[in-house]
Amino acid sequence: MGRSWWGWGLDEEAVQGQEARELERAVRSFLPEADLTVHDAPAVGSLGLARPRVVVPESLAHVCSVAPVERVAHARGKALRDVVRNLEGVVGPVPDVVAFPEGEADLERLLDWCSGANLAVIAYGGGSSVVGGVEPRVGEGFAGVVTVDLSRMRRVLEVDAVSGAASVQAGVLGPDLEGQLRPHGWSLRHFPQSFEFSSLGGWLATRAGGHFATGPTRIDAMVESLRVVTPAGVAESARVPSSGAGPSPDGVFLGSEGTLGVITQAWMQLRERPRWRSQTSVVFDRFFDGVAAVRALARSGLEPANCRLLDAAEALINAGTSVRGGLLVVGLESADHPQEAAMERVVALCADHGGRVGRVRHSDEAGGGGGREERSARWRSAFVRMPYQRDALVRRSVLVETFETACTWGALEGLHARVVAAAQEAIGQVCGGQGVVTCRLTHAYRDGAAPYFGVYAQGRWGSMVEQWDEIKARVSSAIAECGGTITHHHAVGRDHMRWYAGERPGVFAAGMGALKREVDPAGVLNPGVLWPAGAG
Amino acid sequence: MGRSWWGWGLDEEAVQGQEARELERAVRSFLPEADLTVHDAPAVGSLGLARPRVVVPESLAHVCSVAPVERVAHARGKALRDVVRNLEGVVGPVPDVVAFPEGEADLERLLDWCSGANLAVIAYGGGSSVVGGVEPRVGEGFAGVVTVDLSRMRRVLEVDAVSGAASVQAGVLGPDLEGQLRPHGWSLRHFPQSFEFSSLGGWLATRAGGHFATGPTRIDAMVESLRVVTPAGVAESARVPSSGAGPSPDGVFLGSEGTLGVITQAWMQLRERPRWRSQTSVVFDRFFDGVAAVRALARSGLEPANCRLLDAAEALINAGTSVRGGLLVVGLESADHPQEAAMERVVALCADHGGRVGRVRHSDEAGGGGGREERSARWRSAFVRMPYQRDALVRRSVLVETFETACTWGALEGLHARVVAAAQEAIGQVCGGQGVVTCRLTHAYRDGAAPYFGVYAQGRWGSMVEQWDEIKARVSSAIAECGGTITHHHAVGRDHMRWYAGERPGVFAAGMGALKREVDPAGVLNPGVLWPAGAG
Repeated sequence: MGRSWWGWGLDEEAVQGQEARELERAVRSFLPEADLTVHDAPAVGSLGLARPRVVVPESLAHVCSVAPVERVAHARGKALRDVVRNLEGVVGPVPDVVAFPEGEADLERLLDWCSGANLAVIAYGGGSSVVGGVEPRVGEGFAGVVTVDLSRMRRVLEVDAVSGAASVQAGVLGPDLEGQLRPHGWSLRHFPQSFEFSSLGGWLATRAGGHFATGPTRIDAMVESLRVVTPAGVAESARVPSSGAGPSPDGVFLGSEGTLGVITQAWMQLRERPRWRSQTSVVFDRFFDGVAAVRALARSGLEPANCRLLDAAEALINAGTSVRGGLLVVGLESADHPQEAAMERVVALCADHGGRVGRVRHSDEAGGGGGREERSARWRSAFVRMPYQRDALVRRSVLVETFETACTWGALEGLHARVVAAAQEAIGQVCGGQGVVTCRLTHAYRDGAAPYFGVYAQGRWGSMVEQWDEIKARVSSAIAECGGTITHHHAVGRDHMRWYAGERPGVFAAGMGALKREVDPAGVLNPGVLWPAGAG
Repeated sequence: MGRSWWGWGLDEEAVQGQEARELERAVRSFLPEADLTVHDAPAVGSLGLARPRVVVPESLAHVCSVAPVERVAHARGKALRDVVRNLEGVVGPVPDVVAFPEGEADLERLLDWCSGANLAVIAYGGGSSVVGGVEPRVGEGFAGVVTVDLSRMRRVLEVDAVSGAASVQAGVLGPDLEGQLRPHGWSLRHFPQSFEFSSLGGWLATRAGGHFATGPTRIDAMVESLRVVTPAGVAESARVPSSGAGPSPDGVFLGSEGTLGVITQAWMQLRERPRWRSQTSVVFDRFFDGVAAVRALARSGLEPANCRLLDAAEALINAGTSVRGGLLVVGLESADHPQEAAMERVVALCADHGGRVGRVRHSDEAGGGGGREERSARWRSAFVRMPYQRDALVRRSVLVETFETACTWGALEGLHARVVAAAQEAIGQVCGGQGVVTCRLTHAYRDGAAPYFGVYAQGRWGSMVEQWDEIKARVSSAIAECGGTITHHHAVGRDHMRWYAGERPGVFAAGMGALKREVDPAGVLNPGVLWPAGAG
């Protein structure tokens, strides 16, 4: 038992019994003809893993593993295509060595070794990439691959209570981080869906989007300073709340996905745990009435922490609610003052846009959200169950996957129509028509929003990766053609490279390629990700 | 008449008559022995300007000027040391040519010419730099200097009303930009003190801090995409509200101060003009009680648009108010809902920290702040008069200058004490003791604040630049030693290079040097700023 080598999370948390039966019944409602035979993961010993191509130097042996289960568990992220290939026993590129540095000294020695021996280095946090970011598809020309798992660098090193900030090692996973901060009365309040099995370093290296649906939400906004170990030395930015001195040094490393260095520590801005919460849900007969309401909320200055608009299919599948157009789940939170007045204005804005507002709930948790976290804990629990349920469905040959983007409000309606049509058409062709495409808005800005799409379709065991890749390629091209970014918060990795290359400015890419050659002269850091193959 | 070649703004707006007499009386109150003889600027013709070292190609002649008044007017920014040297008739490095491109085609030809002929290129927006950012101290090794004034590229090209965003040419000055946006019902709401004579491109290239005292305030937060002309080609980022695809391309060019390319256009996120405003002022007996109140406000989620804490000297000099510890000017604004309830909480928080809250004023300007802008227009008028008054004082040998930083709340009290002591000690030594050091907090974050210091001291005509440089060097080193950044919003330019070099990570500087060599292979863009001299 423990971490699953082939799928999400912990083996003992896998969907079974009653939960599995309910899931099957739900799938039957929209995929009546699906073959829901359950496929089991093969034993690691049966995979026929090749032996490591490299010998670990004596001085690093104590922090390195060549155990087959570590190597396969670190070979892929957690996308549908990763889980399917694992279940099928399809072995692709696998790291030769998995290293677990205890500190920067170990990490520096690892980078020296890899730079000198021409070994690709893949920094690994929680391993929750859904874009091939940690998969050792590094191309020819490397003598081997060393995946560097930061999980032993997981301590909160210092809490500055006056400033409301903490120095944290990058390998810490979400719950562990919050657990270490709680006794000090602080929280990072960054809760991506991957929260349980993603790390601070991973959030920073992929510019993760988080808890807040409006206002500053990206992990970038919470960074005071970064410490990054590169083959050319350690880069540590000044710890200040905001500086106007030149381009932001942190801005170069945020989102660099392990290609420019390994983020080892960060000073992060913290928040008090919220005491007052107000929440409600709003039903719209037309999805784009809901969109207009969300746009008004994003511009209102009310900054709802939660402001998720689900379309009818999403509401049915993920909230068990039947609506004609959309369901908006909206919540305010504050550590400073009650939210009743603000919620009144939220309600009025939603009604102005044709929404039927449900019961409004207010709560006041004196003491800062200790016991009263229960309800949101239950919601979070459902939220974090989703990846387990995804795995259960995948084992039953259901294609369950998501893709996401962000675009301006002006582009949204056209993008939504075009992308949904592209997805439906692709499902029709590769899955014989049985499938559903859902949409929700996960984050909203003054000038646009991040739509998040779900696909549930009948797969064919043995062809599911090809089926998904075909759907994904078509929707990605549709997104690009309609003015969306290839990713709002899932990063680029290897799977988004084709569209990323078209999205970023060429002059910027050339400049960053030169920067990479300077900080990673041997070109060993996560080859194939972000920068042109020859850039290293 | 028109733009002053030697000082701030318009000749016809210079301080005179009653305003001048009041200013002199105010100075006498704290510099009783000052010699307030008024020094006049010399005629441009008397400066003995050297002839341009270069001949403008025929094809660019129509957008280039070698007129002496253009060359001297573009030779410096608007810091004390710039104005003093101009008034003294001290000629330093002057551009050989001032170019006024009408569009990108002109600009590209200019960059080609300069790259080919080894001419340094200095991008020039409003010319309000106070850090030597536009001064052609480019070192040896260039055949000449071409300053590129973007003022003819000043149009709002497109307004996207659905998304609330506009495509704007970079050369537009503040009032012109707001004037073009007003008929569409939108505002950028970016009002630095230099507003009247600074440009969008300048704000972007220096990561300007703006109107909002709390919450996102830096111009960075309002950018959807940038278009930058570099010697290696045009870089234009995708226009999306937020993307997680790799490091932000805009982040590389924001704050690049003309060293990596010339920003020509940007899609900017806009705001509705506020309708509801609530404001008050709060008196504190101890400055650091006021600091604690500002910290609480910055963490409250109330996001006051104005939240400026003045110390006693600053309150006396700039607000005519006598207080023992501090005066907090706090204001809320919204285009969506009244601010009474939020202001009640502001008042309570201030009272909790020992503040005595003055009269609270609420206003409701139906129609979005048309006529009712009057009061804030008056305040803005006083605010924008300050640079004119600075010039009037400088002409009377008063050392009037500011410096600023940002640091964490935890570092603030120590930094404040040390920096004020360093400034006082320096004034004692270089000005014979007559002088005042003031402090205000201009911007506040959850984790820290931006203190802004003013120096008013008795100068000696003929030695004022050396006097200020000595004070500035000492306070800058004190700031660096106490954990402050060398600049929160004045940029680096040439004058902050010594401290910037110590603040930024060396690995980052090396990487950015490589990036610069890629996008500016001839090394002609604003040499001497940001990147090591040999980087180009």
